[in-house]
Amino acid sequence: MNIFYTPDITNEKTYTINESESKHAIRVLRLKENNIIVLVDGKGSFFEAIIINDNPKKCEVRITNITKESNIKPKLHIAIAPTKNNDRTESFIEKCTEIGINEIIPMLCKHSERKKIKQERLVKTAVSAMKQSLKASLPNINELSSFNDIINNPFNGKKYIAHCYNENQKHYKTVYQKGENNLILIGPEGDFSTEEVKLAIDKGFEPITLGESRLRTETAGIVACTTFNLMNE
Amino acid sequence: MNIFYTPDITNEKTYTINESESKHAIRVLRLKENNIIVLVDGKGSFFEAIIINDNPKKCEVRITNITKESNIKPKLHIAIAPTKNNDRTESFIEKCTEIGINEIIPMLCKHSERKKIKQERLVKTAVSAMKQSLKASLPNINELSSFNDIINNPFNGKKYIAHCYNENQKHYKTVYQKGENNLILIGPEGDFSTEEVKLAIDKGFEPITLGESRLRTETAGIVACTTFNLMNE
Repeated sequence: MNIFYTPDITNEKTYTINESESKHAIRVLRLKENNIIVLVDGKGSFFEAIIINDNPKKCEVRITNITKESNIKPKLHIAIAPTKNNDRTESFIEKCTEIGINEIIPMLCKHSERKKIKQERLVKTAVSAMKQSLKASLPNINELSSFNDIINNPFNGKKYIAHCYNENQKHYKTVYQKGENNLILIGPEGDFSTEEVKLAIDKGFEPITLGESRLRTETAGIVACTTFNLMNE
Repeated sequence: MNIFYTPDITNEKTYTINESESKHAIRVLRLKENNIIVLVDGKGSFFEAIIINDNPKKCEVRITNITKESNIKPKLHIAIAPTKNNDRTESFIEKCTEIGINEIIPMLCKHSERKKIKQERLVKTAVSAMKQSLKASLPNINELSSFNDIINNPFNGKKYIAHCYNENQKHYKTVYQKGENNLILIGPEGDFSTEEVKLAIDKGFEPITLGESRLRTETAGIVACTTFNLMNE
């Protein structure tokens, strides 16, 4: 199945694919008139379509069917400190997009080693993973936000902070209630500062552990995302 | 905490670290006499030690304390088809070593795109992840084995095959019994062949799904490993 990401698609009967995706479809994949493809809008809709003009700069399609992804799942938002090695952050975004996530918020913490991100590149990683895993919803990849801004933003759901200090915090799986929307904070390589943990708790974040193993930042994010999805399946 | 992998360590009172690890300790980390380090044997033991000779070619230590990792957890073995892109297999090994796994068996399937592996490099990835996550047990990384050899080997535990054909197979989390040892088969990019699925079922493997999402090979492996560990925590 050939999936194309077309965020500006509407409910019109025909659609013209942008130049780069047209080139990919016609020059790279060698698709032709009458071939069937699938367009996704990143907002949960699949558009089955038939190619009516295989122009490699502006490929035109006729929409034959529209289906929507189920939208009843609770929402998962993870705020995570970007890792020093950018590949690790990209791997986190790829894996979580496959497994299921709604929003990723790159977070600047006291111990963050990486203080800048290339948001556009992270979005590309998510688009590619969305297509690969045959999904129609693109997680929202935010700009880098400060720890303080994130904990002070209102959030409609339960808030957790996963830290590695041994304070007998409960396991995420034992406090999570099926159906609950979550915002989970995952700290940088050097963990959150004790001050940050305290600030988050003051703002209503519950401290949790993700298991007995000491995990890298991006692994902790993947484990949190897997746990959330498992609890809701 | 500085951890060194010393697979040949015994219960003697002193130990001489090999040349490459000595160099790392003394030249790179600039450790000196009387500094405390930790040696792990990859078989579950931590050796706390004090440097008594900071020779950068043969660093000598005196063992001050030995502790053992808990060994009561059930055992997880995953046989997985190496991905076309080697980084993805390494990422799988790294993440699963952090999360918790006992054996990884690279598996040659009908649809495998990669037919060779560099076992030594995969072991290095596991060693690095073991140290990073402060563990003392190194998962066994096997040589590449054929699908047929793997399904015909005796296994002391429950056997599962995770495939993507829609045959109403049950979710892994609903069939797994806490405490059970597992061997899980994860197929290549193009999935198992239907013949392979049938052969495995004939040999006592139960077909499972790992969730509603279509996952890449290495993501499926990470999700299986996370699920197993979650069920036992």
